[in-house]
Amino acid sequence: MKLTGDGKRKIMVNHELSDLKIQDIGEQGLLERLHKFCPSDVVGDDAAVITTQPEQSLVVTTDMLVEGVHFSHITTSSADAGWRAAAANLSDIAAMGASPLGITVGLGLPGHVQVSWVEQLYQGMTECLEKYHVPIVGGDIVRSPVTTVAITAFGQVHPHLVIRRCSAQVGQAIVVTGIHGAACAGLELLLNPQIGKTLNAAEKAALITAHQRPQPRLDAISLLQKIVNAPNPNSPSPILIAGMDSSDGLADALIQICRASGVGAVIEYSQIPYPSAFNHWLTTDQAWKYILYGGEDFELVLCLPHPWALALVQALGTDAAIIGTVTPGSQVVLQDKHKKFPDQVLTLSQGFQHFS
Amino acid sequence: MKLTGDGKRKIMVNHELSDLKIQDIGEQGLLERLHKFCPSDVVGDDAAVITTQPEQSLVVTTDMLVEGVHFSHITTSSADAGWRAAAANLSDIAAMGASPLGITVGLGLPGHVQVSWVEQLYQGMTECLEKYHVPIVGGDIVRSPVTTVAITAFGQVHPHLVIRRCSAQVGQAIVVTGIHGAACAGLELLLNPQIGKTLNAAEKAALITAHQRPQPRLDAISLLQKIVNAPNPNSPSPILIAGMDSSDGLADALIQICRASGVGAVIEYSQIPYPSAFNHWLTTDQAWKYILYGGEDFELVLCLPHPWALALVQALGTDAAIIGTVTPGSQVVLQDKHKKFPDQVLTLSQGFQHFS
Repeated sequence: MKLTGDGKRKIMVNHELSDLKIQDIGEQGLLERLHKFCPSDVVGDDAAVITTQPEQSLVVTTDMLVEGVHFSHITTSSADAGWRAAAANLSDIAAMGASPLGITVGLGLPGHVQVSWVEQLYQGMTECLEKYHVPIVGGDIVRSPVTTVAITAFGQVHPHLVIRRCSAQVGQAIVVTGIHGAACAGLELLLNPQIGKTLNAAEKAALITAHQRPQPRLDAISLLQKIVNAPNPNSPSPILIAGMDSSDGLADALIQICRASGVGAVIEYSQIPYPSAFNHWLTTDQAWKYILYGGEDFELVLCLPHPWALALVQALGTDAAIIGTVTPGSQVVLQDKHKKFPDQVLTLSQGFQHFS
Repeated sequence: MKLTGDGKRKIMVNHELSDLKIQDIGEQGLLERLHKFCPSDVVGDDAAVITTQPEQSLVVTTDMLVEGVHFSHITTSSADAGWRAAAANLSDIAAMGASPLGITVGLGLPGHVQVSWVEQLYQGMTECLEKYHVPIVGGDIVRSPVTTVAITAFGQVHPHLVIRRCSAQVGQAIVVTGIHGAACAGLELLLNPQIGKTLNAAEKAALITAHQRPQPRLDAISLLQKIVNAPNPNSPSPILIAGMDSSDGLADALIQICRASGVGAVIEYSQIPYPSAFNHWLTTDQAWKYILYGGEDFELVLCLPHPWALALVQALGTDAAIIGTVTPGSQVVLQDKHKKFPDQVLTLSQGFQHFS
């Protein structure tokens, strides 16, 4: 977009400024505007250089989000899309027991996208990242017919403190952080506001916030590391904590951990934390569908020795719970100590699978 | 795609097998098929864990490729698209003076894409990566209306051996690896085969291979590290080698390095290596447009002390050349010692900028 001396053109240009599009400023112009979101010392080379601590392993995860598939203008502002994208990746870093070091952002953008949309996307990402002192260390911006965000996050963890899905041990306690079902319920409320008639404003806001601004549970990892003590390089063996995040749903996480570890689990219905609004708002079936299969709560599901489980739940207060025990076998069984529900073997059948 | 007992249906299914699409097997089915391209010990968790060497810094770079923008079915098989994507990222790692550790691959795919197309994409990536012992350590596969490949590569380098754009010193020699203009000419030949009538088969093949299978110059970095000696932790200061890769063209690389370092350069036309076929095939103007502005040759442009430059060129044989010297000032001047061409100040004006 060239500024000219012509008066009429000038007015048009001023009018267009608030509606400035990518095609008006080009890739280079957009990159310059986005530099403010990145530390100045890591921008400007073919790659970013980041200092890591010795004795730590590198942890890497990547996620791709496509407009119309993973986010939409109806339910998600660009700032929220940015927050969610950053949170999802930091959650994967937390799920490995690691501390985040930085992220890179690949952006595919149609030329008609507003510059302000992209700036707000970065603003949202930065708001989430700042909380954990995580910089955006690089990226790529390209033309694409559909808005696409590809984030790679990397972190570091002492090799003995890595949390894997495959290391659950029979007898360990199963801990979940936070509450499950809220993010999915929040999305439903955004898509169909009329279903929330019986909810009060605070209940609605809490559910919607759970969807729009999920919190990666790096706080729980930090507490857990204090509980199991600082990494001891002389320790003869790794600390066996199994786990993953619940991004694809609580049922999915429990089943994936049990499958990978060759174990089963018994889970007590009454111990699973969920939004209290569900009790008066949803049918039991609907509530449990959200709690078990909703997904995107980005909480942690951890299998660990009972003393550590108790210490972690104590440290997190009401924000975590022991929901069950790792058992021999291969089934994840949901039990109700009040015998209101029959025992149920959890399956992935209600889970979300792309392309299906 | 469900197999049934019905005979007619069975025949249809068999016919479809060679034409199997993503939508037939789903995200999970595709992921299982792609696991063979990844080391088994890094797959299956929320993130990959990679061991790094102490005393090394982490180097991270990311690239996004969109079908129709960065590759097309006309000029690029999926295997070549995979090779090129991997090579471009490894080239960025080389440009920082680093050794690659691994890559992650984010894939956005329409449901109608053939499974074999994706497998060949991974095959092409793997062929390039294997040469440098680089694993694919993770990724994400999502539905998208347009085929999109987002690659993040990471490597490690001793902090004192990092190559940056901003550290060129007046008096240093400027070295380029390989030849410039070949990749761009190869692409033109694929787009307009009729323009290659006066080329022989070997000349055509060499240019097309330069486009389809570019080689990241990790070999040059490895030689350079031997020349400047192994990193010495007691060394008082970093080794000042400036540089970047020529992915956006030789002119772009020279100008970017000079801008970032606050220096100028004098480049001698006759010292710039280019494909010999250009002499009988192209006009002088066309040849120099390809050589200076073609891009995607993925060679290295390095500024370094003369003794190291000489040693590097000697070690690489005909595959590198000293093309000029870093000067005070801010201009990159092209000179012709034979006085056939007038002096010319290089600009970015013929360079490629997305969205422009």
